[in-house]
Amino acid sequence: MRVLGVDPGLTRCGVGVVEGVAGRPLRMLGVGVVRTPSDAELGERLVAIERGIEAWLDEYRPEFVAVERVFSQHNVRTVMGTAQASAVAMLCAARRGLPVALHTPSEVKAAVTGNGRAEKDQVGAMVTRLLRLDAPPKPADAADALALAICHIWRAPAINRLQQAHAAARAPRIPVRKVTR
Amino acid sequence: MRVLGVDPGLTRCGVGVVEGVAGRPLRMLGVGVVRTPSDAELGERLVAIERGIEAWLDEYRPEFVAVERVFSQHNVRTVMGTAQASAVAMLCAARRGLPVALHTPSEVKAAVTGNGRAEKDQVGAMVTRLLRLDAPPKPADAADALALAICHIWRAPAINRLQQAHAAARAPRIPVRKVTR
Repeated sequence: MRVLGVDPGLTRCGVGVVEGVAGRPLRMLGVGVVRTPSDAELGERLVAIERGIEAWLDEYRPEFVAVERVFSQHNVRTVMGTAQASAVAMLCAARRGLPVALHTPSEVKAAVTGNGRAEKDQVGAMVTRLLRLDAPPKPADAADALALAICHIWRAPAINRLQQAHAAARAPRIPVRKVTR
Repeated sequence: MRVLGVDPGLTRCGVGVVEGVAGRPLRMLGVGVVRTPSDAELGERLVAIERGIEAWLDEYRPEFVAVERVFSQHNVRTVMGTAQASAVAMLCAARRGLPVALHTPSEVKAAVTGNGRAEKDQVGAMVTRLLRLDAPPKPADAADALALAICHIWRAPAINRLQQAHAAARAPRIPVRKVTR
């Protein structure tokens, strides 16, 4: 599976594409940052993020998009911008019919380092190792986007099973005839 | 001037179009609500909001879009959805090159009722009176969208003067020759 990870932000929106399946070596296809000038109007910044994400979707044609789930317990101003940037990323993906998954920062850290409270450096180091890169991607937002994509590839089997179970529970009960031979 | 007011929300996004200038009677051109099902995926809800806002922009061709400024001091879950819905509204406007203005709830209340802490009912009553409607628009999100548009029409002259002053202050200083006769 090919996943675009997006670490949303108004000033720097990290993006990274990883291909692979759980249990096999992963491959990085691309990594970068969509930047918008902090002195531009908010609407124009959102348009710039839309164009950036669209360009990445066009170039790499991912099958899934994984976006960091935004919480509002942190810095109030930053969180609003992050929520708005993440909305644009989700919109771009959903418009193309791509499934969007949200993962929390601690889920991502736990997936790639084994520790949900790992430091930035540790995440960067593990992303470098898992993708067999020469050096940690810079800035941290780019490394975080790759970590999100890796997290999604590794969690996807469990998420799919959960969704199937939910769907089965919601589906109308069809009596199953027991076949005995 | 013709203004589309948007009271952003994921479940109900209030929209209202008002035409007029400060100091003259105002005219409502349209009011409504863009709704999205609460059990849909977040990405799909944002796509539905985008389609809804685009339809309003297509039909009424406003020259300005006024969106409620979102604060995060309130309910955390609601605020994230509001921020995301507002991002879609701003994106739709900015993509068309329409100026987007953000007004706080208290600015809007103060503009239409004279009291920045007015109750919902009072805002609805003043919107009804100012636009000479037969009854307050329902739901409250629709009335709030009209109040936002009215607030923008009334505040626009002051905002424009402020922006001109800022632009002048940022512009390179050109020595002005004093002309005396």
